[in-house]
Amino acid sequence: MAAPIPRFCSQCGGPLLDRLVDTEQRVRRVCTKCGEIAYQNPQVLVTTIVASGDRVLLCRRAGPPAAGRWTLPGGFMESGETLEEAAARETYEETGVRIDSGEMRIYAVATLPAISEIYVGFLSTVAENTALVCGSECTEVRFFGEADVPWAELTYLDVGVYLRLYFRERQSGSHAIHFSCIDAACVVTKSYRVANMEEARGPRPGPGPGQ
Amino acid sequence: MAAPIPRFCSQCGGPLLDRLVDTEQRVRRVCTKCGEIAYQNPQVLVTTIVASGDRVLLCRRAGPPAAGRWTLPGGFMESGETLEEAAARETYEETGVRIDSGEMRIYAVATLPAISEIYVGFLSTVAENTALVCGSECTEVRFFGEADVPWAELTYLDVGVYLRLYFRERQSGSHAIHFSCIDAACVVTKSYRVANMEEARGPRPGPGPGQ
Repeated sequence: MAAPIPRFCSQCGGPLLDRLVDTEQRVRRVCTKCGEIAYQNPQVLVTTIVASGDRVLLCRRAGPPAAGRWTLPGGFMESGETLEEAAARETYEETGVRIDSGEMRIYAVATLPAISEIYVGFLSTVAENTALVCGSECTEVRFFGEADVPWAELTYLDVGVYLRLYFRERQSGSHAIHFSCIDAACVVTKSYRVANMEEARGPRPGPGPGQ
Repeated sequence: MAAPIPRFCSQCGGPLLDRLVDTEQRVRRVCTKCGEIAYQNPQVLVTTIVASGDRVLLCRRAGPPAAGRWTLPGGFMESGETLEEAAARETYEETGVRIDSGEMRIYAVATLPAISEIYVGFLSTVAENTALVCGSECTEVRFFGEADVPWAELTYLDVGVYLRLYFRERQSGSHAIHFSCIDAACVVTKSYRVANMEEARGPRPGPGPGQ
């Protein structure tokens, strides 16, 4: 669900109206009292394929949207987190499984422009005897082998697309990063097969640019 | 610059206070009048390395932050765009260069948790005789060969890190996707060297999950 359209200014409480912002040549929600622009930004979600032996971890959603259906652990990224920390936190909250954010590999990046969401997916491996704790947003959490995945009861088709890609790669021993655009018509995915991965540590950066 | 902390409810204009939200076990900005939660989400920026022959496109920033310094074309993603569309739009607005969002390759994903920003970087190639138009946010836009890049006048160190990686890969004919965490101490980058890329079209998905 996309964030609701803002009606009042977050800085002074004044009413917002659509106005053309000259410097940006774009219509924005602008405060009629203080002139502050209420930017409406896309939201970032993270998911993780948590592998244990030849099985993957799925959660059955307790509430809407898609209540009762199975999905990967994940959710909205919070301010102040890295993408991996967000993915590790969501996995822990929903399933009780602790994953090492340093060990995670990036697996997928997807945009859903219709609802202004971005998904970043990770891959993580945990021990075969990992214990599960069902979080408050789930009614059930379980590891599934490929044959047992409730394919017809997944929340969204893209979850199935990524799981099928994962099992195929697992069999072939390959690793890819999937970059998708998910629109009303289909999932278009560019898959970059990864030959190898190396870690490097560069110098300290300055602050980032601002809006 | 991170988004300002919200003080008033965007839905009813009521004052916000920090409150523990039981269902999330987390302190949020909550409206004292209508109970709406004001979520503070990370922001997404896009940048593009636009290559023309053996040169890359840089912009000299007209305003703060880092006014007068050189950087890659880029900026904040807008609602309703794909990541590639955002990157193509920013490049066009700042430099007059049209890039084909279908032809772009993902190059980098980075988190700056200190200011809750996420960067997604792309790579694009344009013709050698591509004309430039300096946008209103820049004082100058130019293509630079590796030897001519104003290395000491770049906005941020990570811009230099990515440019050096790009020129190195260009020489060796390799392609990688760089996944970084940029914190106060350093830039930690996992580089995934890409063996090949393929495009696939999957079935139509359902809607995404909501907050």
